[in-house]
This record gives sequence, structure tokens and C-alpha cells, in this order.
Amino acid sequence: MDKIDYQAILERISEEIKPFCGKGKIADYIPVLAKVPANQFAMAITTVTGEEYVIGDSEVEFSIQSISKVFTLTLAMKKLGDDIWKRVNLEPSGTSFNSLVQLEYENGIPRNPFINAGAIVVSDAIYDGRGKTKNQIIRFVRDLSGNNSLYFDEEVAESERKFGHRNRAMANLTKSFGNLNNMADEVLDIYYHQCAIGMNVLDLSRSFLYLANEGVNSRTNERVISGRQTKRINSLMLTSGLYDAVGDFAYWVGLPGKSGVGGGIVAVVPSVLSVAVWSPELNESGNSLVGVKALELFTTYAQNSIF
Amino acid sequence: MDKIDYQAILERISEEIKPFCGKGKIADYIPVLAKVPANQFAMAITTVTGEEYVIGDSEVEFSIQSISKVFTLTLAMKKLGDDIWKRVNLEPSGTSFNSLVQLEYENGIPRNPFINAGAIVVSDAIYDGRGKTKNQIIRFVRDLSGNNSLYFDEEVAESERKFGHRNRAMANLTKSFGNLNNMADEVLDIYYHQCAIGMNVLDLSRSFLYLANEGVNSRTNERVISGRQTKRINSLMLTSGLYDAVGDFAYWVGLPGKSGVGGGIVAVVPSVLSVAVWSPELNESGNSLVGVKALELFTTYAQNSIF
Amino acid sequence: MDKIDYQAILERISEEIKPFCGKGKIADYIPVLAKVPANQFAMAITTVTGEEYVIGDSEVEFSIQSISKVFTLTLAMKKLGDDIWKRVNLEPSGTSFNSLVQLEYENGIPRNPFINAGAIVVSDAIYDGRGKTKNQIIRFVRDLSGNNSLYFDEEVAESERKFGHRNRAMANLTKSFGNLNNMADEVLDIYYHQCAIGMNVLDLSRSFLYLANEGVNSRTNERVISGRQTKRINSLMLTSGLYDAVGDFAYWVGLPGKSGVGGGIVAVVPSVLSVAVWSPELNESGNSLVGVKALELFTTYAQNSIF
Amino acid sequence: MDKIDYQAILERISEEIKPFCGKGKIADYIPVLAKVPANQFAMAITTVTGEEYVIGDSEVEFSIQSISKVFTLTLAMKKLGDDIWKRVNLEPSGTSFNSLVQLEYENGIPRNPFINAGAIVVSDAIYDGRGKTKNQIIRFVRDLSGNNSLYFDEEVAESERKFGHRNRAMANLTKSFGNLNNMADEVLDIYYHQCAIGMNVLDLSRSFLYLANEGVNSRTNERVISGRQTKRINSLMLTSGLYDAVGDFAYWVGLPGKSGVGGGIVAVVPSVLSVAVWSPELNESGNSLVGVKALELFTTYAQNSIF
Repeated sequence: MDKIDYQAILERISEEIKPFCGKGKIADYIPVLAKVPANQFAMAITTVTGEEYVIGDSEVEFSIQSISKVFTLTLAMKKLGDDIWKRVNLEPSGTSFNSLVQLEYENGIPRNPFINAGAIVVSDAIYDGRGKTKNQIIRFVRDLSGNNSLYFDEEVAESERKFGHRNRAMANLTKSFGNLNNMADEVLDIYYHQCAIGMNVLDLSRSFLYLANEGVNSRTNERVISGRQTKRINSLMLTSGLYDAVGDFAYWVGLPGKSGVGGGIVAVVPSVLSVAVWSPELNESGNSLVGVKALELFTTYAQNSIF
Repeated sequence: MDKIDYQAILERISEEIKPFCGKGKIADYIPVLAKVPANQFAMAITTVTGEEYVIGDSEVEFSIQSISKVFTLTLAMKKLGDDIWKRVNLEPSGTSFNSLVQLEYENGIPRNPFINAGAIVVSDAIYDGRGKTKNQIIRFVRDLSGNNSLYFDEEVAESERKFGHRNRAMANLTKSFGNLNNMADEVLDIYYHQCAIGMNVLDLSRSFLYLANEGVNSRTNERVISGRQTKRINSLMLTSGLYDAVGDFAYWVGLPGKSGVGGGIVAVVPSVLSVAVWSPELNESGNSLVGVKALELFTTYAQNSIF
Repeated sequence: MDKIDYQAILERISEEIKPFCGKGKIADYIPVLAKVPANQFAMAITTVTGEEYVIGDSEVEFSIQSISKVFTLTLAMKKLGDDIWKRVNLEPSGTSFNSLVQLEYENGIPRNPFINAGAIVVSDAIYDGRGKTKNQIIRFVRDLSGNNSLYFDEEVAESERKFGHRNRAMANLTKSFGNLNNMADEVLDIYYHQCAIGMNVLDLSRSFLYLANEGVNSRTNERVISGRQTKRINSLMLTSGLYDAVGDFAYWVGLPGKSGVGGGIVAVVPSVLSVAVWSPELNESGNSLVGVKALELFTTYAQNSIF
Repeated sequence: MDKIDYQAILERISEEIKPFCGKGKIADYIPVLAKVPANQFAMAITTVTGEEYVIGDSEVEFSIQSISKVFTLTLAMKKLGDDIWKRVNLEPSGTSFNSLVQLEYENGIPRNPFINAGAIVVSDAIYDGRGKTKNQIIRFVRDLSGNNSLYFDEEVAESERKFGHRNRAMANLTKSFGNLNNMADEVLDIYYHQCAIGMNVLDLSRSFLYLANEGVNSRTNERVISGRQTKRINSLMLTSGLYDAVGDFAYWVGLPGKSGVGGGIVAVVPSVLSVAVWSPELNESGNSLVGVKALELFTTYAQNSIF
């Protein structure tokens, strides 16, 4: 196969997504997210062979929100191995990402680690009962991205806390079923902070490269997790990474990916590359409207759907 | 009709319920309730004409728990009139009394004021935002019962709070739908205290007499609520007062009533009397096992089912 | 108490309901019901002492629809006694009257005999496996009403069958749980016919008089069912007789009653009278809009709410 | 990469699955399936370059059951293109494969074409209203497999019909929402027949090779569907092909696949091969217990998870 000209693909995409700008809706459930200017777009590719490509507003930092759930799951798998699956399932949820209904019917075992209840259980699993867990998370993300200036945006975390009645409902319901070891508010503090990390698209594509590289951080050559665990995180992203549009994303894009309500989406072509896209306006499923379109164009032009 | 010999009926009941003692299970979701001695039974009748009858362990105080929801609903109806029905529905729930499922499907409007979520909304409705609400509640119950030594059992309230993860889930879910004006924890403090009132069966039958007396406290001759509102509370007790055994209770007993997990049940024969029973062991529906049986015998012998 | 002038009350009601005419919506799920002229109203009272009062379009026959479920339940209780409660529960449903959701979660045991699934199970229980059951039903209703010209409206029954996909779904789901002894289509044939009986308001109030008369048909002096069973049917009507507006009806009217989508409602004042009302336009809960209002006025003026 | 010795892998697998034989449970919801002898195992691989490998009871024909849903979906996509997605969604269901609950909440639009309700809608979509559809299906499967002796097992189809109360419930519920053009029983006749095709593992792996070959039948060189549609069917199999164990299968096996309660599972390595396995004992999710284990070993040894 000829070498793919990724930069040309990014340029083509940045043209073709233009008609889709202005068609979505910025997340407004917390004020601090609502004030992000619309009409921004950035995309970045990092390959396992060390090449990087960017386009658009690639300097702008955005809130990664739910994308962070992949980082904390990785930490939990490093700490607990397969024991984490005793506390959280790995099946698609089939219902809205923050539904308490399913959690109640399934006795406090969340459907997967990427719905909020699941991520809260994962936060509980990595919480050390003292103050060091947040440090551990931010250091982990700095190591993956190679960007030591990444930080928790306390304004975002505080805003999440202030308007987080539903998450507090979920954490307390989980606790009522005995599936939370620590106090709900302590665990939510971890959870809100992990969601409140800001980074740009290149930071993001670099941070996910280990999932395209059999678990190894290619910048430092350190193993993050085993190759087997890497495949599993990728499979989980494919079956549960895009809220209630998992099937849609698998159908139109065909890559394991994870999205956040901040407008970021990151996807992985196993053994080849990671690709991050950001555009703050969301579609009805809560995923970046332009981001999904851009990734669909990407797999079409680069011919690298896993299917 | 000949005058009914209620004392003879109570004596007959206290014999006939004996085979049912020891067949239920004391509530153990909080330790302080679990340590109540089983095998206790008491029953009291207060008529609108001022007669009183008691039998059994009628001196023993028990925790009224959910029975208190009738008192706070009455306070909310006094304060808000029919406006309270904008925030809580008046239909039977059809599911377990603490289900979050229904609350989520129905957008935070609880099915009725006697399920936990509904009672929490009622507590929010009567909360003044400062510290006086608890005083108001206990004074109201003292007035109804004529017993000025009634008090909140702080040990019970604290125990409810400590193990109240599911109630906290419910309050936060309600808040997430915008149906709670105050902070969840403040409202729950009211709620846990109202449930933690201790009284004996005679206090209880006296406290409910206004619902048999067209809304008038017959001891003081003061109107508590209107006759019309009285009928409504009675109808609500009939359709929603016995957790998930409303139909069963209407079928076998045939009176408006309200039960609590402390083992108390109180029922009303409109225009005639109120009757309270207490026995701490519960049946599968969370109602006093002996208490339900005793009331079934009572309406059979006194021939006063409303149907 | 002075003798109540029921005729005057009926006249007052027929004036006061006028503003509510034209505000509802005629049932249109089957064409044959949709063509009933709106703006009709009739009301009839039959007392246990033999007096009768009528007003309005009292000659017009209407389709009793779900009201028939009380007749078939009575037949099933005569045939099986309390064994019928092994196959159908007696709790309010808390959800829309034709929901399959609850039926599935509760393993094919319908919540009560007045939701469609419950009535289908009751039809199965009285079905003899041959052709005589329909005859038995119509004879029973003729005996109760004293009107030997009552008949099944075959056009209505056929229309119900033709558009009855959801009932067929329900019957088959019940069968899949083993709670239907006969073939779904045979049972549905019984069910559609019982719903397709036409009568006028006076027929209807006469037919229900046994439930106000401790189970005795006062015209023939024959016992229909025991006094105990009578109370139970009344309690069931109160907790489950008005679709998803049971609490509302108990709150505003305060009588055991049963409604049908044909616009009829019948209610019982135990030991006193039965009252039937008909007006074809329905409110959002599927009950006659004017009918509910008329009964609310009735219990207000006659002062005979059971609460 | 060295050439993979698939025959050696099959031999190794057939040894290593032995401890898992006898641990599952043969489908017994219809008698005709229940009488299949346990302790059978067969596996077959067909590569896009024309090589074939088999092991075990590869001559034995088994009922493909739900695997047939991929064939009828392919026919529907050929006939309707993307219009089929107006009538059926493409998201994972998150609940048991035959649940009516979700179908009711989502107004008769099945979650995906591989749950029963979805497959029934697909059957309706390809039904011509006359008798030729079954012929079309069997011819299509014969063409894909190259085996002209494949046939519908009428005994199995009749058994499915006889015990198919839940499927009839589902079809009628779908019809009640207007999402079935033909009569429920006619559509179910198509559905039961498609499930009742018998074949052996080699037939099965050959039949699915077009999904590994960009949509082309490599035996005849005819295009079955477009490359784009092929990727989509593969993505759908990955997100919805294994009943309620989709996440588990993606996690442990990592290939698009489809299972049936007859004990067959077929999976696709895009651009490389199709692999079929059969062993009649099922695990708790209704998938072949030994089959899942065998495919997990297969992707481990052949190193061809798509993740």
C-alpha cells in the first residue's frame, strides 16, 4: 500500500466539514462549558511510527470530560487487573448514558466503565482514601501526553459539583447497593476532577497512542498496560465509548473511540495511529457533531475502518 | 345498630393474632430498629365520641417512620392547598416504595406523597429554609396527640441519615429535575427527623382522629384542615398508604390506613374512629404482619369496612 | 338525615356539566367508536330501596367496554373463589392500562383484573374451552340488568379484533409465561365480546346494584356473590378501576367505580345506591371527562363519598 | 508475517476446549432442539484466498437459528439500502434479546436487526406479500454456501411456531406501533423458516466469507453487497451480534460475530477469513459455551483480533 498522505486528508476534511458547523449545540448543563465559542475545529493524528499531523484550532485547550474515563479505567486495570470486572460490567448500556433505571434493575453493578455510574465505580476503585489519587491521575495523563503543564480546571470541577445532582443520585444509589467503598462525595470529587482536565487535540491524540501501540507509551518506551489489556480497552471503546450512539459510530466510522461533552473525540486505529478531533457543538447523542463527521471522512479516505 | 363492644373485639383480636407472632421479620436496614424486641403487640381505638380502648403493650413507644408522612402532608396542604399537587402526583405507584425508576421516567414528579420521593418533596415544601420546620412538625404532632412529651429520637434520625444512601439518591435525582427548592441534605434532615418520632399506639390513634372527624381535632375542637381535604387524605391513604400492598389492604381490611416500617399501622373509619396497631415484625411488603391481620379481624368483627 | 332529593341533584348536575362538554376527545382507536356523536350526556341512579332516577340521553345505548371487566371478574370469583388471585394480582398498576412492560417484569402475572392483561387472564379463567362462555356472560349481564334484550355488538367486537394488535401482544406474552390455558385468539374472542356489550345508563346502574347491596340482586332477591366478595370487588374498583387516574378519582369523587372508553362510568355507594353516567368524550386518562365531573358533583351534593 | 498454520491451531483448540464440554446447557425452549446430542464440536475456517480447514464433527448439520438474521439483513439492505434504518435502529440493546420492554419504550422501533423484534421487522421488509420470499432466502443461502442441498427444516419451523408466544407478542406489539406492513403471522412464518435452516460448520464459514471479502462471493466472484455495506454489517455484528454478551465477546474474542441458540457461532476477520464453530451446549447468555472459548483461543493463537 502506498503511504497515506495524512496531512492532505486532514486538509480535505477541514474543508468538507464546513457545512456541518453551526448545526449542533454546545453543552450547557454547566455554565462554564456553555461559554466556549462555537465554530471551532481541530484535528490531530499521531502514528505509532512517530509522525504527527494537525489542522485547525490545534492550540486551543478544551475540557476532555468523559474521555478521561479511559485514563481512569486504565489506572484501575493496572491496579486491580480483571478484578475490576467484579464491580462493573462490560456490556453496552442500551440506554441514555446517565440512566439510573438500569443501575437499579441491575443492583448497582454499572453496565460498563464508560457510563457515569461505571466511571464513578472506577474512581472509587482507584481512590486511595486519602488525597493522592488526584495527583496520580494528573501525573498519569501528563506522562501519556508528554505535556507536563496539563492541570485540573478547578472552575470546571466546581461547576460539575455544583450542578451534579444526578451524579450524586447515581453515586448514592451505587453506594446503597454496596458497590462504593468510599463516601459518595469523596469519590465524586475524584470523578469531577478527572473530567475537568483541559488539553488540546495533539495532547489528546498523543495521550491515546498507547492504545494503538499494544500498550506501550512510544515516547518513553514504557509499557502502560499489557497488549491483551489494550485490546480490551479498545473493544470496550467500540461497544460503549460513544454514549447512546455506539452502533452509529461503529457503523459510520468503524473505529474504537471515546467522546466527551466538551466536544472532543479520540479514536484508535490498532497498530497504526490515534486520531483526535475537537469541535464543541454536539449532536443529539451528546457527541461532537462535526467531530463524528470528520472521523467518518477520515476512515473513508484513509481506508482504515477496522471492519 | 347495637353499640359495638370494641374492648371485647380488641380482646378477641389479641387472642386470634397469636399464631401469627414470630412469622415476620423486624426491619433491619438500620441497626437501631433491628434491636426492638419482637413478639410485642398493642392496639388502640379512639372514637369521635371520645371513647378509647387499648390492649397489649400499649405503653411501649415505637418509631412511627412512614406514618409521619401523613402529618407532613397535612402541614403541606395547610400551607399550600392544592398547589402541592403541582409537585407531587396522587396516583398509586405500582412499584416498590423506594424505586428510582419511576421517578426518572416521570421526570422527578413523585407518584404520590407517601412514597419516599414524594415525602421528600413534601418535606421540601414545608421547609422554611431555616431551623424552625422541625419544631413546627413536633408541635403539630404533640397537638394532635395531646402528648406534649413526644420528641424526635435523634439516634434513629442519625441512623437513617448514616444508612440513607438510597434516599440521598432519590433526593438528588428529584433535585436534578428541579423539583427540590432546598439542598438535598437539608431536606433529608427534615425527612429523617419526621420519621424518627416515637409514640405509643394510643398516641397514634389519637393523632389520627382528626381524619375520622372531618378535619377537627376533637380534643381541642380546633379545625386542623377542611372536611374536603380530610376526605382527600383518606382517599390517598387508601390508594397509596400501604407501600406495595395497597390493593391487598383495601381488599382484606377495607379502610384508609398508613403503615411504617417500625411496625405501626393506623387506620380510619370515617365519621367513627381511628384505630392504631403495633407489632414490630413485618411481612414481605414491609407492613406489620400481625398488624395487618389484626386490622382485618377488626373490620370483620366491627363490620366497618368502608366498602 | 333528611331524604336526599336525587332527582334535583341530577338536574343540577346536568346544568353544571355543560361548560365541560366539547372539551374531551372521543375514543378513536377503533372506527366504530369514533363515530358516536359527541355532546351526549346521561345519568342514572338506582338505590337499594328500589328507587330510580334518570336524566339526559338515558335511552341511548353505548358500548360498556372495560366496565364489563367487573362482570367477568364476578363470574371468575363465583367459579374459582380466591384461587383467581393465584393468576392475577390485586395491586394498582401505576402505569398505563395496557403496558406490557410491567407484565414482562412481573412474569406474566397481571397487576390487577382491570388492566387489559388481567381481564384477558380472567376471560381465560372463565372460558370453558367450548362455545358456551359468551352465552354465559350475556345471560349474566341480562340477569343483573333485568334487560333481556342486551346483546353483543358484533361490529364492535370485530373492530376490536381487527385493531387489537396490542391486546394480541399482551395475550401472547401472558401465554409465554404460562398464564393462559387456552389459545390466545380464543380467549381474545371472549374478551372482545364482553367489551362489546351495549346498554343505556339505567341498564348500567341496575347491573351494578348488587355491589351496593352486599352481593344480592335486589330485583330477583338472588345472591350473586357473598358480602365479603362484594366488598372486595368494591375495594378493587377503588384502587384500580379508573385506568391511570385511580388516585384522582378517589380524591375528587371518593367512590369505588369502573370506567370504559365508550364514555361510561359506574360507581357504587355501599349499602345505598349505584350511579351510572355516560358521556362519550374522554379526558387524557381515557375516562369520560364530563362523567368524572358529574360524579364529583354527585358526591359533593349527595355527601356520600366513602371517605 | 509468517504464514499461519490454521490446521495446527484448530487441532490445538480442539484439545484445549475439552475441559469445557459438558458445562453448558442445550437450548430446550423447543423440543426439537433439546434432543440434539451434547458433546459435539466442530470448527471450520475459510480464507479469502480459498483455503479451508475443518476439525471435529464437521459433517453434522445444526440449526443456524439467529445466525440467519445476518442473511435476511443482507437481503433487506440489497432491497432497501439505508432505508431499512428508518424501521430498525442500529444500537446495542443492553437488555435481554427478546425483551418487549425496550420495544414498548421506543415505540416499536427495534434497537437493532439482530434482536428478535428487529429480525421480525427485517422479515417484514423483505416479504413480498406472497409466497416467494422463503424461496428467495433459501436460494440466497445456497448461493453463499455453494451447497444446493440446504433446506428449511419444517419440523424446527413448526416447533418455533407452536411455542412462539413471545415472538407473536413481539410481532403484534410492533404491528400496534405501525412498524409491520404485513400480518404478524405471515411475517412470523418467514422468520421461523429462516431460523430453521440446517447446515454444517463448513457451509457456515463459506456462507459468511463475503463479509471478510468486501462483499464479494469469492466462489462465484459475484458481488453480494457493496464494500461499504459489508463494513456496516460487520460493525453491527460486533456491537449487537452476541445477544447480551456483546461486550464480553468483543473483549475476549475481538471479532465481529453472530451466534444462534443451536450452538453455532460464526466470526469474520475482515480481509482475511471467516471462521465457524459449533457446539450445542450454551452458556448463560445463550451463546455456545465451547464455541466462545474456541474463538477466544483462535484469536489468541492466530493473533487476529481486530483490536
